[in-house]
Amino acid sequence: MARRKAAAAATGVPASSSGAIDIGSTAGIREGRVRAVIDAVLPAVDGGRFPIKCIAGEAVAIEAHCFTDGHDKLRVLLRWGAAGASEEYEVEMKPQGNDVWQAELTPPRAGRYRYTVWAWVDTFESWRYELERRDDPADVRMALQVGSALIGEAAARAAGGDAAILAEWSAQLRAAGADAGAEPDGLKALALDTARAAIVARYADRSFAATAALELVADRKRAGFSSWYEMFPRSAGTEPGHHGTFRDVEARLPYLAAMGFDVLYFPPIHPIGRINRKGTNNALTAGPGDVGSPWAIGAAEGGHKDILPQLGTLEDFRRLLATARELGIEIALDVAFQCAPDHPYVKEHPQWFKHRPDGSVQYAENPPKKYQDIYPFDFETEDWRALWDELKSIVDFWIAQGVKIFRVDNPHTKAFGFWEWVIGAIKRDHPDAIFLAEAFTRPKLMHRLAKLGFSQSYTYFTWRNTKQELTEYFTDLALGPGRRYYRPNVWPNTPDILQETLQSGLRPVFAARLVLAATLSANYGIYGPTYELLESAPREPGSEEYRDSEKYQLRYWSLESSESLWSLIARMNRIRRDNAALQSDSSLHFCPTDNDQLIAYFKMDSKSGNAVLTVVNLDPHQTQSGWLDLDVGALKLDAEQPYQVHDLLSDQRYNWRGRRNYVMLDPRRVPAHVFRLRRRVRTEQDFDYYL
Amino acid sequence: MARRKAAAAATGVPASSSGAIDIGSTAGIREGRVRAVIDAVLPAVDGGRFPIKCIAGEAVAIEAHCFTDGHDKLRVLLRWGAAGASEEYEVEMKPQGNDVWQAELTPPRAGRYRYTVWAWVDTFESWRYELERRDDPADVRMALQVGSALIGEAAARAAGGDAAILAEWSAQLRAAGADAGAEPDGLKALALDTARAAIVARYADRSFAATAALELVADRKRAGFSSWYEMFPRSAGTEPGHHGTFRDVEARLPYLAAMGFDVLYFPPIHPIGRINRKGTNNALTAGPGDVGSPWAIGAAEGGHKDILPQLGTLEDFRRLLATARELGIEIALDVAFQCAPDHPYVKEHPQWFKHRPDGSVQYAENPPKKYQDIYPFDFETEDWRALWDELKSIVDFWIAQGVKIFRVDNPHTKAFGFWEWVIGAIKRDHPDAIFLAEAFTRPKLMHRLAKLGFSQSYTYFTWRNTKQELTEYFTDLALGPGRRYYRPNVWPNTPDILQETLQSGLRPVFAARLVLAATLSANYGIYGPTYELLESAPREPGSEEYRDSEKYQLRYWSLESSESLWSLIARMNRIRRDNAALQSDSSLHFCPTDNDQLIAYFKMDSKSGNAVLTVVNLDPHQTQSGWLDLDVGALKLDAEQPYQVHDLLSDQRYNWRGRRNYVMLDPRRVPAHVFRLRRRVRTEQDFDYYL
Repeated sequence: MARRKAAAAATGVPASSSGAIDIGSTAGIREGRVRAVIDAVLPAVDGGRFPIKCIAGEAVAIEAHCFTDGHDKLRVLLRWGAAGASEEYEVEMKPQGNDVWQAELTPPRAGRYRYTVWAWVDTFESWRYELERRDDPADVRMALQVGSALIGEAAARAAGGDAAILAEWSAQLRAAGADAGAEPDGLKALALDTARAAIVARYADRSFAATAALELVADRKRAGFSSWYEMFPRSAGTEPGHHGTFRDVEARLPYLAAMGFDVLYFPPIHPIGRINRKGTNNALTAGPGDVGSPWAIGAAEGGHKDILPQLGTLEDFRRLLATARELGIEIALDVAFQCAPDHPYVKEHPQWFKHRPDGSVQYAENPPKKYQDIYPFDFETEDWRALWDELKSIVDFWIAQGVKIFRVDNPHTKAFGFWEWVIGAIKRDHPDAIFLAEAFTRPKLMHRLAKLGFSQSYTYFTWRNTKQELTEYFTDLALGPGRRYYRPNVWPNTPDILQETLQSGLRPVFAARLVLAATLSANYGIYGPTYELLESAPREPGSEEYRDSEKYQLRYWSLESSESLWSLIARMNRIRRDNAALQSDSSLHFCPTDNDQLIAYFKMDSKSGNAVLTVVNLDPHQTQSGWLDLDVGALKLDAEQPYQVHDLLSDQRYNWRGRRNYVMLDPRRVPAHVFRLRRRVRTEQDFDYYL
Repeated sequence: MARRKAAAAATGVPASSSGAIDIGSTAGIREGRVRAVIDAVLPAVDGGRFPIKCIAGEAVAIEAHCFTDGHDKLRVLLRWGAAGASEEYEVEMKPQGNDVWQAELTPPRAGRYRYTVWAWVDTFESWRYELERRDDPADVRMALQVGSALIGEAAARAAGGDAAILAEWSAQLRAAGADAGAEPDGLKALALDTARAAIVARYADRSFAATAALELVADRKRAGFSSWYEMFPRSAGTEPGHHGTFRDVEARLPYLAAMGFDVLYFPPIHPIGRINRKGTNNALTAGPGDVGSPWAIGAAEGGHKDILPQLGTLEDFRRLLATARELGIEIALDVAFQCAPDHPYVKEHPQWFKHRPDGSVQYAENPPKKYQDIYPFDFETEDWRALWDELKSIVDFWIAQGVKIFRVDNPHTKAFGFWEWVIGAIKRDHPDAIFLAEAFTRPKLMHRLAKLGFSQSYTYFTWRNTKQELTEYFTDLALGPGRRYYRPNVWPNTPDILQETLQSGLRPVFAARLVLAATLSANYGIYGPTYELLESAPREPGSEEYRDSEKYQLRYWSLESSESLWSLIARMNRIRRDNAALQSDSSLHFCPTDNDQLIAYFKMDSKSGNAVLTVVNLDPHQTQSGWLDLDVGALKLDAEQPYQVHDLLSDQRYNWRGRRNYVMLDPRRVPAHVFRLRRRVRTEQDFDYYL
């Protein structure tokens, strides 16, 4: 991509092309001589109301629909830079036909960027274009006079040596155009000099440029490609009944690192309220030994900026962060903006909560249900500015400790406008911060949160189980209008959701859902160790809650179970790390199969050509087989030549040819193929060699 | 539609929800307590940058995507009124599921309207919803205290009798809620009184409402449904070689009225330049008797506000307008913003034109082509404000004479921004003005002109001849993103375009193209008398220009030719007037046929149920037959019962049943069926009766 720094002082003042003009007199129109039109700039979210999202270091193609009246030539530039910074880059946009212009920009690092399309009538280029086509000698001489003037004006805008070159050229054209005996061909050759025309282009008159500005958010790579593991630190104890600590978690890091996870997410680690504490299995009253729900935040020991003493000290936490970092693991914290009744905020800032007529604080409720252990913040408080500032300071506090990833609990139950502000404000100072929206709610709310700034979003994957459900849903996620701002993070389970299919406890179900999550989505996670240990008992029939859920009690886990999915998970995470195709979602492409239990899809990384084809048997009981129709064109495979598919799970290789190929999967072994496609690169030798 | 006038003084000040918020401190945020979200308002053109178009008196459905955080209830209103007027109406938007809210508005007359979606958290309705679900007696009593306060606040916002009713109700709830022995059911009945709740709703607190405002343009009916006839007045003479006059045109009006046209459009009627006048067949030099091109406007006799003396006087013109009006015909004038070299503007306002280095005015050119009889205006003139004002005054002048419809010549060769301003300014004072954009150019330019304000637009119909071309093109026009602002006006011919198929001179081609135009598009036109007289000779092979074109010479037409398509055209225009289905485009629905020469489609008027099915044989030589698949569901026909199709061209009737029906068309008779669908309305009698 050719790019160069913009001249420090912009040449001319842009006349904005956005906004409806006044009617009646021309008084409301600042500049009527803007003849270029920017009809659209794409991609855009809601007409530019929200920024698109991309990954730092990866090119973004920007498209602009630009034209002008008549036959004149247009010049279109993309000018871009970090939002708020004065330094900007410029890149020429190139016409693609049908009045579409295109250029790429590559944000060098995470942050918010502003980019502006500039379009103007290029008088000099229009003159050149017409001169090339002129044949009447008198017209050619006249055109040289016109060109001399245009070049003279460019000379006046130019500096130093360029100014001198152009002034000289202008004089040459003036003299040559005045010579009635000059040959038209010689005159044209002089006037159409491309080297000096390039200098003129550098000093174009942009006085009447139309402009259209948009913003984008560039995130670091992990916002787009991450493997999450959720665990309750308090259940990391080495003996049953012992409250786990950060030290215990530290001891478990090698297990997690070997499994290949790069984000380790903890439910809230703060002091837990004692008033109206919930007992095991969500009992209304807690026994004396009950540890309570970590989401009931705040007690005498402190609130959102404090650590539950049983887990350790802030120093222990920082040490854990450092050890994890060495193993390539980032710790993600839970942001749950709500309070237990004994949270210090309740006494210090009573105005941040709703009160009942008897003066008590209004607990959370959804009548007839009551959640008396939780006080929600009142986002309609008159003191909203102080509340917003304090909530932001919580995130800032943990960032200061070294945390950069936050999973936000139920963001759709707090004011939407707050999220746009707080995420924007935090990311301005910490562009590498990542926010995952834990909103399992209606589609438009989930999309709005993503538009407002959340880096990643939970999805409905947990409830999408059949081939048709998965195909429709992931096609929409990858190709639908949300693809520019909604980054899915898919989870087969969470502490709140033990989906019905997992309640079977069948190993092929857990394995298949794991492979689907890890290959359908560049961001995925599991809640462990329940997942690798195939925990499957619901609290009661028909419930999606775990029995003896860690949300309300300590659990002890024997990680060494022979049933554990550990090695499959470790292999899947390695495959993800080794194959760029699995590190983004936009290339997802489903393949028809003639068996409804067999789902197949591939992803391809356009830069490296790396391609991974996944086939999953959705039936946990029976071997399923069928014919798969592979779009060899989209994969850039030679339909006439054999190619190799290399199953990265079993390490088996198959030679395929053409579109239709046969697959068979026995769920009692592994219910999936994860094929890396290897194109044949040499045929002139005795042996084939596959890349 | 239930609508009522908004309270004169709005309750509370809206906090706008549009525009990105500032980052950093909360200082840039005016109001953080806005919890309602308006995620989208539809339909919208380019996110609201341009107004949608509709027809006065016809309902427009507005959709808003609104929600809030948590479980609270939302209230959504649509507030609308004429742009700039203080009087506004309010209508409740109703939830349609999936957070979509909907309401209709019906602009009573032509003009520009502003409509604003208001959404806010309805505290009172949320309270009612929760109270209905409460069962704990203490909670019910507490809720009555809360409700008493809410109703008391509404009472304070209310006036007169309403205030008294609410104050009393508030007191009742307060007293009842304080009665520890009261039965919950009785308390709830008192508090859930729907009649008084309706009064509270009238005085809702909108302080924290989100708002989103858009505009629409309502045009009079003729902007959406019109039948145009273009003719050169100078060729209306009663004898060969005589220059036609407005009086001659007046004599021809009965012929046109009987043919059913309602817009009669004239090429420019102004004095024609003498300098560099073109001769017959576009010859570079004119002979002494040559009349020149009407588009070379301006001479010693005057310019754009004057009439070519040979045509008559301004008084003659006004008389023609009046006579035409009595026959239901409106005169449309041509707006061609360009000058002949002898136009008075050239001397009076030399600064409005580009000059060459020798001081001469720059004529139009597209090297190596030169158009020395035309001087274009320079839209980059420093004096652009005066130029714009003068051009607007031309349109105002003709409006003052009684003209309200203008066909704008080549608008895409004048600055786009000018059109947005001039059409907006003229329509503010004359909302019934109609502008047709004569832009045969690239798609994005044509669409931009329609967005900017042109009421109707020429199309590519002339070059869409096969079944596939017609189906794709008209499906896009009727259903594509342009349908909210782009009103097609389709012409089988124009003075500039004698399309290749018409050069065959075959009557079935002329008839088929006429029927296609008149039924595919609610707005259509022909250039006559060339069309009804089957004029078919091109200037030379491969040219789309007419030989001996009226653009450069007088022509004499014998209207009484036995070959004339007069009666078919008259019948088609009558069918269009009698069938609401043909008076709009949005319901266009193509029907598959098993013969590529047979194209079939229907339109249905949803209000009256009127439905018209058109079948055209595109082969001018052979009888074609085939099976047609009619979407009886979309037509609301009972698939089990016979229905009647009544050919309004031949007056023949057929009884059909179900989806598949047989059609056969002999082009030597009429190459089309235009069926009115008649549903059987009675079966209990011996005879069937069709509506």
